[in-house]
Amino acid sequence: MNIEMIRAAATRIHGHALRTPLLNSGFLDEIAGRRIWIKPECLQHTGSFKFRGAYSALSALDPVSRANGVIAFSSGNHAQGVALAARMHGTSAVIIMPSDAPQLKIDNTRAYGAEVVLYKRGGEDRDEIGDRLSRERGLTLVKPFDEPEVIAGQGTTGLEIAQDANAMGITNADVIVCCGGGGLTSGIALALEADAPTLRVRPAEPEGFEDVARSLRSGVIESNAASSGNICDAIITPQPGVIPFPIMKRLCGPGLVISEDEALSAMAQAFLRLKLVAEPGGAAALAAALYRPDEIQGDDVIVTISGGNVDPAMFTRALEQL
Amino acid sequence: MNIEMIRAAATRIHGHALRTPLLNSGFLDEIAGRRIWIKPECLQHTGSFKFRGAYSALSALDPVSRANGVIAFSSGNHAQGVALAARMHGTSAVIIMPSDAPQLKIDNTRAYGAEVVLYKRGGEDRDEIGDRLSRERGLTLVKPFDEPEVIAGQGTTGLEIAQDANAMGITNADVIVCCGGGGLTSGIALALEADAPTLRVRPAEPEGFEDVARSLRSGVIESNAASSGNICDAIITPQPGVIPFPIMKRLCGPGLVISEDEALSAMAQAFLRLKLVAEPGGAAALAAALYRPDEIQGDDVIVTISGGNVDPAMFTRALEQL
Repeated sequence: MNIEMIRAAATRIHGHALRTPLLNSGFLDEIAGRRIWIKPECLQHTGSFKFRGAYSALSALDPVSRANGVIAFSSGNHAQGVALAARMHGTSAVIIMPSDAPQLKIDNTRAYGAEVVLYKRGGEDRDEIGDRLSRERGLTLVKPFDEPEVIAGQGTTGLEIAQDANAMGITNADVIVCCGGGGLTSGIALALEADAPTLRVRPAEPEGFEDVARSLRSGVIESNAASSGNICDAIITPQPGVIPFPIMKRLCGPGLVISEDEALSAMAQAFLRLKLVAEPGGAAALAAALYRPDEIQGDDVIVTISGGNVDPAMFTRALEQL
Repeated sequence: MNIEMIRAAATRIHGHALRTPLLNSGFLDEIAGRRIWIKPECLQHTGSFKFRGAYSALSALDPVSRANGVIAFSSGNHAQGVALAARMHGTSAVIIMPSDAPQLKIDNTRAYGAEVVLYKRGGEDRDEIGDRLSRERGLTLVKPFDEPEVIAGQGTTGLEIAQDANAMGITNADVIVCCGGGGLTSGIALALEADAPTLRVRPAEPEGFEDVARSLRSGVIESNAASSGNICDAIITPQPGVIPFPIMKRLCGPGLVISEDEALSAMAQAFLRLKLVAEPGGAAALAAALYRPDEIQGDDVIVTISGGNVDPAMFTRALEQL
């Protein structure tokens, strides 16, 4: 896993993924107490950065494997990313999703052309279902974050941040990244190490699911006590990924931790000041920048809004914060 | 009013206005029955394209006039655009707003540093207030659309559309523009005439306020019967502007007309599929593309989402369409 893989991924996704801008708002600067820049990956195809990694992984496969199709496990954004990337490569995708996944995310994954196989959480063994389907059909597994070509794709976000930060002369900034397994965080960290080495990458997580923050403190991979029960569903993972963790340990931290109410407030501010739709997990980094100013050192802060796949009821709940 | 003024405005606003991308979504393509591209000017500074024209006008003023300050009449987006552009030029702005303007827009205009003077609609004569203030303080009036340097600024949107359309090989497209007085529509039309002459510009307006559509049909400036009473407040103007109209007559049409419910549905689709916050008037062009497919000829359609300054209650109302 290295910078050259990220640069190669950038070449492959060029013209296929959206090159997102950096946005800002003086109103948010005032809340944050410093200049704040937003990388709006909610505008990315499928509504999250996950498309970058999925497209990177599909485009890096050998043609025979790719033609046989791919398989992924996901309840949400990775599912949609893999489904669309597979369609764009003219191949098929099987996505194994829990039957209690949000209906919109199931519908979208199907609408992008994937075959969705539902399993009962707690009952059926999804790995067994996946193994059987892979063997029977010769499908290639695309993991959500413990896969170098996926991390390389997410890292293209970091190349763009570096390019824009350098163009604007931003040299002393915290780059806060919404963090689940660490694919986006580690990819951005590698890209910035190469192209904007004075910027510091900080993972943001919800309270009770701050496995990355704790792992960075202790120096070893730590797990969360619970596996669900937070509105920031997109960034709830059991523990940091095996490939991302050493990269994060070397380049990132300390972690920032936000509450559910802060995630909802950040969604409301994104609506009001940026005209962006963020999902709760996608607003974690913005929440940290707005509501944890004392834990941030930079003159500037750059945050990812990593996804916007939120249902209307949850969004309305966020707007009630205004 | 010519293309050279638009190119000069583009040079002046470069690095100050946001260079917005073109977005798309396969889900919206399916509704529209053709490829649909979105120019998200809701992401522009102050939440609407109006910032482009305001910055263009302020930057084109002679230094002495600019230092004396500017004045504008507006209940909304032009107010915010002029206020921020004035602040960015280190000068002052007086904005004359009706006392029944949305509180958020009044608050924002003040927050951008402008002095807001409220008048009672129907009671006090706003022109008299404006004339008196201009004379007393030597302020320069920045009109919302009947002003060449404002139209030149709005036209930079068209230069960007042409650049992206040409890069993607889009040659047979309707470009639908949310249309009030015609500043944005005529500016885009002039830019496309020069840089992407096979594209057709079509104004979109709400039912009952389709003064531009009727004027284009009859060939002379026609007025609306009412001056308020539609949720698309940002694009409700009494009649087409004197400078924009001949440009639109030569280059644009026929006009497209949408209902309030269609504007709300388009806002909901922008939320769901684009992760963008559109205000009702800013969603008029998207509504026309989605719900008036039989009136569109192009293989592709390009639409502006011209603004996103909507209060949470109206946005929640739009989400109820889903």
